[in-house]
This record gives sequence, structure tokens and C-alpha cells, in this order.
Amino acid sequence: MTVSSKDLAQREKLTPAQVRKDLSFFGQFGTRGLGYPVVELRQQIAEILGINRKWNVALIGIGNVGSALVSFKEFIRQGFIIKLIFDNDQRKIGSFNKGIEVHDVTNLRQMLNKHNIELVIIAVPASVAQRIVDEVVDAGVKALLSFAPTNLRVPSNVTMRTVNMAIEMEHLSFHLTNENLYYTA
Amino acid sequence: MTVSSKDLAQREKLTPAQVRKDLSFFGQFGTRGLGYPVVELRQQIAEILGINRKWNVALIGIGNVGSALVSFKEFIRQGFIIKLIFDNDQRKIGSFNKGIEVHDVTNLRQMLNKHNIELVIIAVPASVAQRIVDEVVDAGVKALLSFAPTNLRVPSNVTMRTVNMAIEMEHLSFHLTNENLYYTA
Repeated sequence: MTVSSKDLAQREKLTPAQVRKDLSFFGQFGTRGLGYPVVELRQQIAEILGINRKWNVALIGIGNVGSALVSFKEFIRQGFIIKLIFDNDQRKIGSFNKGIEVHDVTNLRQMLNKHNIELVIIAVPASVAQRIVDEVVDAGVKALLSFAPTNLRVPSNVTMRTVNMAIEMEHLSFHLTNENLYYTA
Repeated sequence: MTVSSKDLAQREKLTPAQVRKDLSFFGQFGTRGLGYPVVELRQQIAEILGINRKWNVALIGIGNVGSALVSFKEFIRQGFIIKLIFDNDQRKIGSFNKGIEVHDVTNLRQMLNKHNIELVIIAVPASVAQRIVDEVVDAGVKALLSFAPTNLRVPSNVTMRTVNMAIEMEHLSFHLTNENLYYTA
């Protein structure tokens, strides 16, 4: 079974030329006029995204957001395996969440190294987030996902993505408030 | 107290010209050579973002993600007030979460209208998300924030933002996998 760049473009609201150009950046895909073999393309895209393997993930902060993340089945399906949880709350340390033990955050650096953690999810309050991020970076971790509602700094060789739900809501209130800007422009 | 476009630019990693241009899009701010009065600018930006007022918000789906959102204090601080929660689980309907009653999702449309809900947060499984989104749009809601890990369609006069945590993680695994692409380019 094959899929054309036109089919792919329609699904993602792009142009066929964009699809072909984006894929060509990563090498030779498909055959001109015949399209892309679906199974092979899916495998190649998984390789590009790095989701054809498992990644050791640590979660720091097991409050409301952290708990939701531990239960998020999509992570496991994509190969992101939460191996360690950290918190600073003595009542949580030593307990288990979905079978994963909660460790004392004071042992962060040593534990990250011991368990070969490659990705870290930050779900701690804004007030302590930068300090935790600095420790994670010091431990040699190169990829972080932050849910802390604050601006955080990392060195240029480290990748950080931020999910800020308050800002997502502000996008919406902005659109509702400024609807006229778009329709009259 | 005043702040210059240079100060603002440094904080946000922009150029002073970008800051001035972006603000000028919304009207006349500050005085040339003197900068922006801080209190006034903050108030004006809040007006632009629509966070100088309260918004009636409904949350659909009170699973792990939904529960985390109800506890997210930043929403209230920005004026996003969750007035209604909906679920289809009979064990949850009628219960209270942070003082907010959980309603039967079968009454969705009627309840959204009755309570003048302007923003809706979708935290339901991917399999039912499009059906729920369609009902919300039918009820006249113009702004949605979705946490469902799937592509959803809304009419062009409706704004939808999507938070997809799996895709955020894929950004990271992509960067870790393709580090060389950047350093050798």
C-alpha cells in the first residue's frame, strides 16, 4: 500500500510540495509517480522522530500535573518510559505511583546518572523550577519538558519545551477579545 | 516607573524594534525617549489579552488531566473561572471537585448556554473528542482548548488550541536523535 504526497498534504492541511520538501530533508523517500510505501514511511518517520526506541524519562514533582502525566498512556506507546519520580514532600517519598517509586529530590543528580535518564519532565512549582532545571542540566540531561508556569533558562546545547496552560488560555481570550481585528483587517 | 523597549526586549529575547512594532499594532503606547509607564502598560496588555476580566469556562472530562486543570491556580489568577464540569461517568456525576459540581455530559448544550460559557476545555479520550467538540461548537462556543491526543476539526470562526504532550516529547526525542543535523549544517 502506498500514499501520495497529495494524500498526506490533505490530511495535514499542507501542500504536496511542502510534504515532499520536508521529507527530502531527511533523505530519499518513495518513488516519483508511485508515492510512498506506507509501512516503510511510518517506520522512517518514527526513526526521524526518535520514537522507534525507548527513552528513559524522569518526572520531577508528583503534584496534580505530575500525577496526570504518570497516567498518560500515550507516553508509553511512544516509547517514553518514566523510570523515576522525584518529589521533596516526605509524605510522598518512598510511595509508589503507577508502580514507580517516588524518590527524594535531594538525590536527583546521582539518580539521574545511575539510571541513564535522557529526558526529564519538570512539574514543580514556578518558585523552585529554575533551581531544579539547573541541577538536571548539571547532571548532563539534554532534553527537558517543563510544565512550570515561568520562564526558564537552559544552555544552548540543551533543548527545553514548555507547556504553559495559562498562556494557551490567553491565546483564546485574546482571540475572543480581538475578533474584530481579524475580520476588519 | 517606566520601562524601555530595550528592557522588554532583553527579557523576552527580542529586539527593541520588534517590541515597539508589536505594541504599535494595538495603538499608541508610551512616549518616545521616555519609555512605557509600567502600571499603565501592564493594564493595557491585560486588556489586549482579554485577561482584565473574568471568563466563564467549562471543563469536559474529569479524568487525570481534568483533575489537574481544576487545581491549576494560575487559571483563576488570570480570570479563567471553571464554572461547570462535565463527565459521562455515573460515579462522578453529582460529585464535587474543588467545589465545582460534575454534571452529566448529556446535558452539555443546554448547560453551556444557561451558564453563558465562553471557553471550553476538552479533556476527554481521543475516541469521543470530535463528537464533544461538535456539540460545544453547536452550542455557540467560539474558543476551545483541547488536551485530547488527536486531530480535531472546528469551523473557521472558532478558535481551538491544542496541548499534545506526546508531541512535545517527540520534539525532544527528535532533537536528541538529530543533534548532528544542527551542528554539522
